[in-house]
Amino acid sequence: MMLVKIGGGEAINLEAVIADLAQQSQAFLIVHGANLLRDRLAASLGMEKTVLTSVSGYSSVFSDQDAIDVIMMSYAGLRNKKIVELCQRQGINAVGLTGLDGRLVQGERNKGIRVRENGKTLIKRDLSGKPRSINGELLSLLLDNGYCPVLTIPIADENGFAINSENDDIVTGIANALEIECVVQLIEAPGFLDDPEDESSLVKNMSISELHSREAAVEGRIKRKLLALTRLCQGGKTRVIIADGRGEHPVRDALQGSGTHIQ
Amino acid sequence: MMLVKIGGGEAINLEAVIADLAQQSQAFLIVHGANLLRDRLAASLGMEKTVLTSVSGYSSVFSDQDAIDVIMMSYAGLRNKKIVELCQRQGINAVGLTGLDGRLVQGERNKGIRVRENGKTLIKRDLSGKPRSINGELLSLLLDNGYCPVLTIPIADENGFAINSENDDIVTGIANALEIECVVQLIEAPGFLDDPEDESSLVKNMSISELHSREAAVEGRIKRKLLALTRLCQGGKTRVIIADGRGEHPVRDALQGSGTHIQ
Repeated sequence: MMLVKIGGGEAINLEAVIADLAQQSQAFLIVHGANLLRDRLAASLGMEKTVLTSVSGYSSVFSDQDAIDVIMMSYAGLRNKKIVELCQRQGINAVGLTGLDGRLVQGERNKGIRVRENGKTLIKRDLSGKPRSINGELLSLLLDNGYCPVLTIPIADENGFAINSENDDIVTGIANALEIECVVQLIEAPGFLDDPEDESSLVKNMSISELHSREAAVEGRIKRKLLALTRLCQGGKTRVIIADGRGEHPVRDALQGSGTHIQ
Repeated sequence: MMLVKIGGGEAINLEAVIADLAQQSQAFLIVHGANLLRDRLAASLGMEKTVLTSVSGYSSVFSDQDAIDVIMMSYAGLRNKKIVELCQRQGINAVGLTGLDGRLVQGERNKGIRVRENGKTLIKRDLSGKPRSINGELLSLLLDNGYCPVLTIPIADENGFAINSENDDIVTGIANALEIECVVQLIEAPGFLDDPEDESSLVKNMSISELHSREAAVEGRIKRKLLALTRLCQGGKTRVIIADGRGEHPVRDALQGSGTHIQ
């Protein structure tokens, strides 16, 4: 079983990704982002996002009710249904779902983000949390009956409220629940770059210990992504490929060796 | 099995509808609108909807690609996930879906709307169509495993493209496919009114032949709604209740006799 994570950037060649997937003989499911769409929609509606950096160096979007509404419109609405539509046009019988649907991804509400503001440490609590359990029965029910789940945020908190969460953490949860053999992460770069500014600095292979040391050395959003990757790989059952989502054959090329291969 | 159609108006008491449904012992599914949200979002984004009236007197929204995008954001995104969230908070294990997902509702693209403009008859073709088949297997798969489907537009055309459709026609298709015994339609009025301007003119009971004669006598959007109701009732297996969605117990009151009962 394969899981394909599709990033939410503008340059991702969605048509090509889905056309490649339509040629796959193995079963797969999709997890996708929509950050660019979210940001544009929020700006159009006059609801700019707030990004907080915690005292421990992780960056997160602060999710108030407006932010959840925009996530529902952009991730669960436009982007999810556009991907489902592309799948249906290519003969993939996709079913788009959020973590709320059937409590597919049940999370635990964050206790609050510790931030420094004007020399003081404050705790800011929002509508976000971490995935704690996956409804593997529902995913298997769909997969066993020939449907391809297409998943995104929001997820459900302990009481069924919609909360924001990191799609990377959702990928890790699903990979563990379904014992996924291969995760392909499609991004707007050739793979993991040694120097983020230099596309020729692709790291072709990475061990889990190298992933650990790189995570310790960075700050901000990339730190969170590397931590999620570490958790994804550390069980030793899941192979991860970080590959370019912008080409004509993003999935085929990734499976044939392009991008960064981690195991 | 019961089907509850929730209108897309502002005054519908969604919390009360879902709280009532959480008390039901029978299985049910939900079909919902979001016309107010759609109109507001389109206005905020500068994409006003176009309504055409055909030469035969039926009114329809003209659905271009922008209109489909707005439907995905408002119907499939915000409204669908808000209803799923309310269900999850009340212990109903809801799964939100559009007609695209698993080709739940497969339609036939409209050939075009014949309109009169400046003394000429023109054919205008858009992204809309009529439901022709329902994926009853997927609905049954979910219902049999304890999930409550929450459905809305868009639907899929013959080639998997997202198209707009009338939720009333989708309700009729599902009622026939699943042999639904009772359809409760929750609207922003006490039921079917003899005089649309007078809430005290509630028609408490209506026969199918009365429905036919009323449909023949009117024009515009209400004509389409009455035609859909006629098709829903004419098989003789489905009882329909049109009831007030604004109260404290919309579903309980409807099942206990309030509103307009058609059979």
